[in-house]
Formats: sequence, structure tokens, C-alpha cells
Amino acid sequence: MEQAQVHHQLGAHTAGKPIRCRAAVARAAGEPLVIQDIIVQPPKEHEIRIRIVCTSLCHTDISFWKLKDPPACFPRIMGHEAVGIVESVGKSVDGLAAGDTVVPTCAAYCGECADCESEESNLCSKLPFKLSPWMLREETSRFSDLNGEVLYHFMYVSSFSEYTVVDAALVAKIDPSVPPNRACLLSCGVSTGVGAAWRAAKVKAGSTVAIFGLGAVGLAVAEGARLCGASKIIGIDINPDKFEIGKKFGITDFINSGDCGNKSVSQVVKEMTSGGADYCFECVGMPSVMQQAYACCRKGWGKTVVIGAAHPGSQMTLDCLDLVSSGKILTGSMLGDIKPKSDIPVLAKRYMDKELNLDDFVTHEIDFEDINRAFDMLISGSCIRCVIWIGKEEGRRNAPSAASE
Amino acid sequence: MEQAQVHHQLGAHTAGKPIRCRAAVARAAGEPLVIQDIIVQPPKEHEIRIRIVCTSLCHTDISFWKLKDPPACFPRIMGHEAVGIVESVGKSVDGLAAGDTVVPTCAAYCGECADCESEESNLCSKLPFKLSPWMLREETSRFSDLNGEVLYHFMYVSSFSEYTVVDAALVAKIDPSVPPNRACLLSCGVSTGVGAAWRAAKVKAGSTVAIFGLGAVGLAVAEGARLCGASKIIGIDINPDKFEIGKKFGITDFINSGDCGNKSVSQVVKEMTSGGADYCFECVGMPSVMQQAYACCRKGWGKTVVIGAAHPGSQMTLDCLDLVSSGKILTGSMLGDIKPKSDIPVLAKRYMDKELNLDDFVTHEIDFEDINRAFDMLISGSCIRCVIWIGKEEGRRNAPSAASE
Repeated sequence: MEQAQVHHQLGAHTAGKPIRCRAAVARAAGEPLVIQDIIVQPPKEHEIRIRIVCTSLCHTDISFWKLKDPPACFPRIMGHEAVGIVESVGKSVDGLAAGDTVVPTCAAYCGECADCESEESNLCSKLPFKLSPWMLREETSRFSDLNGEVLYHFMYVSSFSEYTVVDAALVAKIDPSVPPNRACLLSCGVSTGVGAAWRAAKVKAGSTVAIFGLGAVGLAVAEGARLCGASKIIGIDINPDKFEIGKKFGITDFINSGDCGNKSVSQVVKEMTSGGADYCFECVGMPSVMQQAYACCRKGWGKTVVIGAAHPGSQMTLDCLDLVSSGKILTGSMLGDIKPKSDIPVLAKRYMDKELNLDDFVTHEIDFEDINRAFDMLISGSCIRCVIWIGKEEGRRNAPSAASE
Repeated sequence: MEQAQVHHQLGAHTAGKPIRCRAAVARAAGEPLVIQDIIVQPPKEHEIRIRIVCTSLCHTDISFWKLKDPPACFPRIMGHEAVGIVESVGKSVDGLAAGDTVVPTCAAYCGECADCESEESNLCSKLPFKLSPWMLREETSRFSDLNGEVLYHFMYVSSFSEYTVVDAALVAKIDPSVPPNRACLLSCGVSTGVGAAWRAAKVKAGSTVAIFGLGAVGLAVAEGARLCGASKIIGIDINPDKFEIGKKFGITDFINSGDCGNKSVSQVVKEMTSGGADYCFECVGMPSVMQQAYACCRKGWGKTVVIGAAHPGSQMTLDCLDLVSSGKILTGSMLGDIKPKSDIPVLAKRYMDKELNLDDFVTHEIDFEDINRAFDMLISGSCIRCVIWIGKEEGRRNAPSAASE
């Protein structure tokens, strides 16, 4: 088959042909990614091929990069927060065309199932999310190395590559004027956090909020709660530096959970909120923290939303009498209950309207060649989000600069 | 102090004076109640004294009657589902006067706290429910035997007596034309079940409902779901006779949880509801059943409401990844989230308008003298609700007869 060796040109001459381009491949657990040439097949039915412009690194990438045992698999192209330009579309793709600016996500919208038709669910039944190393609709890959060895996908996105193929059901089309080094944040972490406050909890104006864990997702919850008009937003973390960062996202009060003296975190939150926070968010993924969050939630109407991904098999416990007598609500959320196709454009617009703060999430920006540095920075804790410019030729000149580089 | 020895007369001549009357006293755990003369003090500030007309027996009465250890205490006047006529009122009682027909409950409404002002909570913060043997606002009793020994209260109601004293914050005033052998059901069990569907879950028309445990509360959940327009109401019980009874309250399908072959109850419910019930209700009080209810709830929007009172200290466990990835909602409810003062009159009117089925809950009616038979019948399982006529002289002639006596 003829291979199109392209770099950063769009157009009809690559459509339908395999593309040879560069990708950062995770070849083994915990080992630095290797930037190498790969082959990206053209999109099949319902699929689109995207030229990635920017991607950002999320802790989930790191978790699966470190993981030795299944569902880990190698060699793999990681990365799932990104923005890019549609290079070509497969059959049966409606509403998307070459040249569109799109944000790929891991949450599908088939538009036909009960979940897609409901305002209450973002968990498409026809095309459910799985921890799969393949495409969304079939157990095949669109990636191989130059020897023909299969490279696995990651979370249906695999954005650490100049080109990727994703299912059309997974992408949100956005205004191309949104800077790519901001738009990429909307793929996962920031949308999860903002959505948890906005869509999952439906935070009311004037309410009190407690957020456990101030990584990018927790800070995005604060930002979402701020946009919803919460009057008190309490950030809880073991790192006291997070308070200063958190203020940029609306955090009004801080609790160092490692330094509460002889009180529990729940006691401190209850004292600060006259009996309990109206909304509690768990962004850590630890059963004990989930229980703390539930404990400091206001009786009667308090809602606890668990966002943190716990280790498989881990369990949280609830006292049955407390459950009945407190009237509290416990729920969890994937991607903050947002529906990417309709909600990501709204978030992008709110950024352009200077309502949603995306700038302060981006503490670092680097070139594709330096991608392994992004891993080091996120692991060290000095970084909220590091944007990696995959296609740096365009857009970067007019893009906002990193907030605190 | 002068004692008024009265039987069934209302009026100014008893107000302010102790009343000598009959009560069924639980003298020791599990022993038959003893009907004896007692002294009922006049109401203090914020209190009212009620002449009980009808009371019904609930499993909670039996649980505390059987209980040997604290919070059990004896001698005690049990009973907490009732209707009566206000005999006199203490100071600072607004909106209630001698002659009013009232339903006493265990849930207060102070009208001033954040919970009472909120539509989302029925858990008054100023006058919270406790498992107390005393009056609501102070640790004193209004009952004594003829030797002056204190008799304890039960759930702030103590309706197994011709006269009782309760806090004015606990009573709902209802239309006196509601038959007393129906009105008494609204004190607790039926309101809890109907309210769980109506107020706590807010069951939507056309939705699917699964109810675990078809005692009076579970049947009342079905009745509430039917009134909300649920299209499928699945009853789950180990007693297959419950299906016939359940049909009277809107149950459309039945699962014998002791006879599901090689399937789990959750599997069967999921098959019957295309993936899970929109609403699940736990009316048993067992952690394993709570987990089953949560398991068969629809992903995305399914709501599980726990109503059953579990043993103190018992815990339910949730898989943390399931919690996050399913988006299900878990909550609990006391008294079905109803606010007695405003909601019980609504339920009473719906009964009078022939919308709410109360008649079929009453399988037995007996005289006060036979009260110990009510315990036997409820324990044997042949009874949904047994109404005990405390003041049989009035009302009974025109009251509806027992549905299946």
C-alpha cells in the first residue's frame, strides 16, 4: 500500500492512505517514551484521523505507563488530553470534515441510546467505555511500527503521536480560534472537574463546597464551583502550597489534612460550614478519603461526588444507620457527567469569554521532543498541567504563554 | 395535685390537671403489655396533650419491645402510629387548639432552622430525632404509674395510652373527617414508604422501580410509586404471598428472592428492566440487601433509597470503581423525606379523594383490651397493619371496616 509521508500538511492527498509520522511510544512499563516513526492507517467507518496539535499529560497516562500487569500493555501510544485538526474522515461520519478543530475524549455519544437521549447520563450504552487497548468499535489498532508490529491505543485517543485515529462518536468540534494549548485541557481532567461541580453535583449559588485533593481535577472542581457561584470553596490537600494555586480557581479556604491537630478533617470542615459542606468532591481515589468526604457532607441534602479512580477491587464502607438517618447523597461521576459533543464547546466558549480560567492550569509547555520531561515534572508535583506541542509550526505564536513557566 | 379521672370527655375541666387513664405498659422486654391506670401530666410549654383514638402497630414497636439492652428501657409506653384529638395545649403552642384532630410523628418541624426552611431536608436541626425515652425538648416524662414510678416515652409519641403528651412541633393537624383507623397509618410506616417514592426519590412517570421487602413500608413505596406514575413496579420478597397483596398497591411484577435459580436478584431485575431499575428501595435493613439494591439500579441515573433500619454498627460496602464508573446515586431517608406538618394533610386528602390506598394496609382491627394479640399477629406475618381502637366510642361506626378481616 502506498504510504503518504507527511508532516503537517492537510489535504486530500493523504486521505485514504497510511501516514508515516512520528509518535512517542511507551515500549515498556516505566521506561522513557521513544520517539520513532510509525504508520497510522486511514480511518475506517465511523472513524476520523486527526493531526494532533497539542496534548497535555494527565496522571492517568502516568499510572498506565508505570503499570506492569494487565490491563497495561506495550508497546503503546499513550496520551488522552488533546486537540487537533481532522485530516480525513471515514465512511458514515456525519457533521465532521477535514479541517475541523476537534477535542477527542474517551466518552462516546451515539445519539441513539437511552443514555445519550437522557440529560442525566453521559454513559453511552451502545459504545461504552472500557479499559481497552483497541479502537472503540472493534478490537483492532490503527498503529504499527515500521516493522509492522502493532502499537496499542490508549483510552481511545493516543495523542502522543502526530496523527491518531479515533471514533467520531468521541470527539467534540470546537471553535478553531480557541488556543490549542488551552483547548487540549478540555479532553479530560479539567472537564471532569468542572463538570463534577456543574453537571454531576449541580452546585447551587451561595453553597459550601469541600474538595479533597488539589491536583488538576480538584482545582477544576473549584473552578466549576466558582462558576456556579459557591460562596465557600474549601480545598483539602497535604501540600500547603496548593492554597496559593487554588486561590486562582476560587478556593477560599484551605485545610492541610496532614496538620489538623487532634481533629479529623471532617470535624474541621463541619466547623467551617456550620455542620457540613453542601457538596463534597473526592479527587484522590482512596476509600478512606471517600469516607471522609461523605462524613463531612451536610445532613439532609449534602451530596458527595466521587471522581478519584481507586485501585481495582478497593471498597468503601458506609454505616447503614448513618446512611438512613443522615439523608446524604453519594454518587460518582465519569468525566464530570459532561457530554463531550455538546458540553466541551460550551466550556471552550466560556474560556474565550474570559469566564473559565484555563490559563492557570498550564504551568509548563514543552516541545514534542522533550515529552519525557513532562513525565518527570508531573511526577515531581511542580506541575499542574504540562502542554506538549506536537504540531508546533502553527498556532503557537498567537497562543497564550504558560502561566507560570 | 388534683387529678381528673376522665374517660373520653374533652374540655376545659381537664386542662392543666393530671389525667388518670388507661395505658398498655411494656414492663419488661418481650413480656405482654399490661393495661393499667396511669397518670398523664398536663402539657408543658410547646407541648400538647392528646386523647388517642386509634393507633397501629409497627415493627419498630416490636423491635424495641423485644430489646433487652439499651437503648431499650422499661417500664415504657410504646406505640408511635396514631391519631387523636387535642385535649389541651401548653404555653407557646401556635396553630393548635383543643378539639383539633392530629397525627403525632417522631419528626419535628421548628420552622426556623435551615432544614425546616429547605425543601430538601426533613431533619430539623433545632429539635433533632434521638432514640430518647423522654420528651423532645427535655429529659423528663409526662407519665407515671399510680405509685409515682416514671413510665418512659417511646419515639416521642407513646400512643398505647388513652392520653399522651407530645411536642407540638411533632404533630400534623388533619381534616377530622378522615377515618381514624386510616389516619393513624400516616404517622410513620405508610408515610415513610409513600414519601420515599414521592419526596426522597421523586419517582418519574413511566419509570421502573424495584422494592426489596414487602412489609407495610415496602408496600407503601409501591403505592407511592404508583401515584407517581411508575410503569413497572417490581416487588421482591421471600414470601410469594406478597405478590397478591402487592397488586393492590400497584406492584406489577414479583421476584421471589429465595427462588431465583442460578441467577442473582440483581440479574433478574436487570433483565426485567433492560439494564437496571430507575429506582431501587431497600425496606429490610440488611447490608447485603442494600448492596443488591444498589447493584440492580440503572447506571447513569439510577437511584437507590435505603429506608430499612439496620442493626447499629452494621456497614454496607461499595466497590469504589463501580461507584465512579456507574454514576448511580445512593441515599437514605427518614420518614420518606416527608415534612409531617405539611405533607401528612396532603396524604390524608389524597386518601379522601380516593387516590391513595390506605384501606388495604389495614388487615386487622382490635380493641384496646386485645392489644397483645396485635403483637402476635404482626410477628406471625399474617398482618400488614393492625389498628387498635383506643377510644372506640366515637368514629368507629362510620369508619371503613378492615379490608380483609
